[in-house]
Amino acid sequence: LAALHRDRELRALLGDEGLLEARDPEWHHDATESQGIAGTPWAVARPADAEQVAALVGICWRREIPIVPRGGGSGLVGGAVAVGGGLLVELARLDRFRELDPGGWRAEVEAGVRTATVHRRARESGLLFPPDPGAAEQSQIGGNVATNAGGPHSLKYGTTRAWLTGLDVVIGPGELLSTGGRARKDVASYDLTGLFCGSEGTLGIVTAARLRLIPAPAATRVLAGFYYGAAAGCEAIAAALASGVVPAALEYLDGAALAAALGAFPGGAPAQRGFLVLAEADGSEGEAEQAGAALAEALTAGGEMREFATPAEQRELWRWRGGVNGAVRARRGGKLSVDVAVPLEHFGAALEAGEQVAAESGLELASWGHAGDGNLHSSFLFDPADVAAVGAAERGADALLERIAAMGGSIAAEHGIGWAKRGRLGLQLDPVALELHRTIKRTLDPKGLFNPGKKV
Amino acid sequence: LAALHRDRELRALLGDEGLLEARDPEWHHDATESQGIAGTPWAVARPADAEQVAALVGICWRREIPIVPRGGGSGLVGGAVAVGGGLLVELARLDRFRELDPGGWRAEVEAGVRTATVHRRARESGLLFPPDPGAAEQSQIGGNVATNAGGPHSLKYGTTRAWLTGLDVVIGPGELLSTGGRARKDVASYDLTGLFCGSEGTLGIVTAARLRLIPAPAATRVLAGFYYGAAAGCEAIAAALASGVVPAALEYLDGAALAAALGAFPGGAPAQRGFLVLAEADGSEGEAEQAGAALAEALTAGGEMREFATPAEQRELWRWRGGVNGAVRARRGGKLSVDVAVPLEHFGAALEAGEQVAAESGLELASWGHAGDGNLHSSFLFDPADVAAVGAAERGADALLERIAAMGGSIAAEHGIGWAKRGRLGLQLDPVALELHRTIKRTLDPKGLFNPGKKV
Repeated sequence: LAALHRDRELRALLGDEGLLEARDPEWHHDATESQGIAGTPWAVARPADAEQVAALVGICWRREIPIVPRGGGSGLVGGAVAVGGGLLVELARLDRFRELDPGGWRAEVEAGVRTATVHRRARESGLLFPPDPGAAEQSQIGGNVATNAGGPHSLKYGTTRAWLTGLDVVIGPGELLSTGGRARKDVASYDLTGLFCGSEGTLGIVTAARLRLIPAPAATRVLAGFYYGAAAGCEAIAAALASGVVPAALEYLDGAALAAALGAFPGGAPAQRGFLVLAEADGSEGEAEQAGAALAEALTAGGEMREFATPAEQRELWRWRGGVNGAVRARRGGKLSVDVAVPLEHFGAALEAGEQVAAESGLELASWGHAGDGNLHSSFLFDPADVAAVGAAERGADALLERIAAMGGSIAAEHGIGWAKRGRLGLQLDPVALELHRTIKRTLDPKGLFNPGKKV
Repeated sequence: LAALHRDRELRALLGDEGLLEARDPEWHHDATESQGIAGTPWAVARPADAEQVAALVGICWRREIPIVPRGGGSGLVGGAVAVGGGLLVELARLDRFRELDPGGWRAEVEAGVRTATVHRRARESGLLFPPDPGAAEQSQIGGNVATNAGGPHSLKYGTTRAWLTGLDVVIGPGELLSTGGRARKDVASYDLTGLFCGSEGTLGIVTAARLRLIPAPAATRVLAGFYYGAAAGCEAIAAALASGVVPAALEYLDGAALAAALGAFPGGAPAQRGFLVLAEADGSEGEAEQAGAALAEALTAGGEMREFATPAEQRELWRWRGGVNGAVRARRGGKLSVDVAVPLEHFGAALEAGEQVAAESGLELASWGHAGDGNLHSSFLFDPADVAAVGAAERGADALLERIAAMGGSIAAEHGIGWAKRGRLGLQLDPVALELHRTIKRTLDPKGLFNPGKKV
């Protein structure tokens, strides 16, 4: 099976450009490389269309070849890494932008279309596709669907699921399933779209998505509040949430995350730099103005507030924000990020829990994320060559997940369970839910071929 | 089994007030009474809490007694009617408002809490629970969840599913399942919350819901545009959707629906009365003002526009709108409403399809609904005593569903499949999706006891 790239049946289906040896190290990991998650696929399939995906799944089902679907490879939990081998199925060639209907506020794209392409095409028609995961230039819609990806603007707009009206999915034993349709409202069937969205490739392979769009907001205000420490920052966050408006985004960086990324901060470093809160208001000119004023008042108390007034400045600020993950990783070379969400009243406690666990582990922690959704990316930093530190980070992550679950939080807010959090679902789900979860997996994938070891 | 209300085992569990003979005719139908959907349950169970529901399901599972869950009885597809008998399980006594956390933007309620109570309690804390199905004073959250209920404001805010972070559900063979939690973001498990939301009691019984809330908009503008006919009305709708704003609601009434309800129209009948478009803008004062101006411009062209300026006038207008369903039904005594949604570009064609089918059936049609979501409630009117007309309406509804499905539309936009549309899923779902749908039902309800005959 290590020579699966020379397999005759697969080659007959996929052709020379559709079946490759997995030599390129890019295929051996995703964005969790620095925490040591890796695996060498037996081969890489690059199907050209959904029919090839269906035929491919049919072959794998019959011959019991494990399948690891892969989008842009920007995942943060090892979901697209062939840890135990198997056939890596890269969806990049399914990149047709099937339809953009400005009047109907919708689009339909194949799984391999990049998230940034959808953003750009929608914008060109005055529309918005709100989901904005961090690596939009790299990530693909299929991966966004598979992980139900979020991002800063999920606070106002929800995660990827909220923007789907239907999917094309290949399921076992090799059939092309169409869920939902193009209508904006549909309760006819069980929520098959929702069943596959967020299932991380463990129930089937998403090959296309029907997307809801909305008119793009006419105006945006972007504000940054700097504070001496987390206490003042958390007060600003609470004030923003109590201001009576729904921010488009409400982000935070703790002192360590800010230190890692501050050098590149647009406009240079401010005086107070122990905690950063970013807030955005959007809507009509009037909405952005008034909601922005409410947020500005909330952010000004106890800190130093700056506004990013022009669209160019705002883009630069968000580009900087998008680089935080990489800047934090670069600080020690490696990191283990724990993506969690807590009920809003526990946000401060969740920050502190990370600090405490890090102190107990003897590791540095940097934390940032989507404060308005109670969504923290608390990251343990280490030198990847330091085996003891990597182990300490893994134990620290486990301890933190336990404390988050005890707060009634989610152990996977927007990145998924993947490989990194395998076996941890029981922290959050009760035994009845866990058993139902297993039942669903068994029912759709009785042979355990779809992304084995992930999610469950 | 006709004497199930005297059953010893059930009475030992539920007590005298929890197990009743189904004498009250209210228990024999829901809001589909005028189209003849009815059934006499073998008994009515009124459990006091989720533990009783779980024990009750355990008994029914063992003894193979069919279970028909029932909320407020305001359903429009016969979903809560015991058409083939069985035990009616009324959730009204599960009416505890467990928690309202204004700072955390969330609430948790039992299934029997009325929708209007959630609206009111949220408003008292400056918050909004957006789902607004028509009979909010009667309907209960459990029923809203079971049908994934929508309403006028789904256009901006989405249907019930978008406002759930988790559910308590009793599943077979009698276990209490908890899905999701209280965090606003959670992708840890498969979307179990979404699986039960919209499943119409065919997979389990929802006993509680954890709700997301948001700050209530500070201001609202409500506009009504009157047109001579559907062509001008559809142009106004298209103009509103192309105006660059997201209306909070965008509703329509055709000439017949308007004629049925016009007598009570707040402020009296206007000059042009062949088609009505209602539009609402909400947000900060600035947003309502500017989005409202864009909508006013869209509605003014080709018609006569009125504004409902004060909160009292706006409430009165929406109260009038809430009465349209009853006014249309009163016109002939009976109606069969076809709740469908089409991609927006087919909205005019869907209106015309209803007219054509009604003409072919020799029946009067009235149509109204949520234009911005492409969601039509096209209703065939008849005298319930006229058996031929009832039959013609049923055949007409079937013909219309076929034409809607052929447009890529949904045969059930927000009311569900229930009993009224049983067996019609194949119009919309392809064979692969239909088989997966059946597989899910079989997996969770192998004995076919949960709301038999509905949804599938």
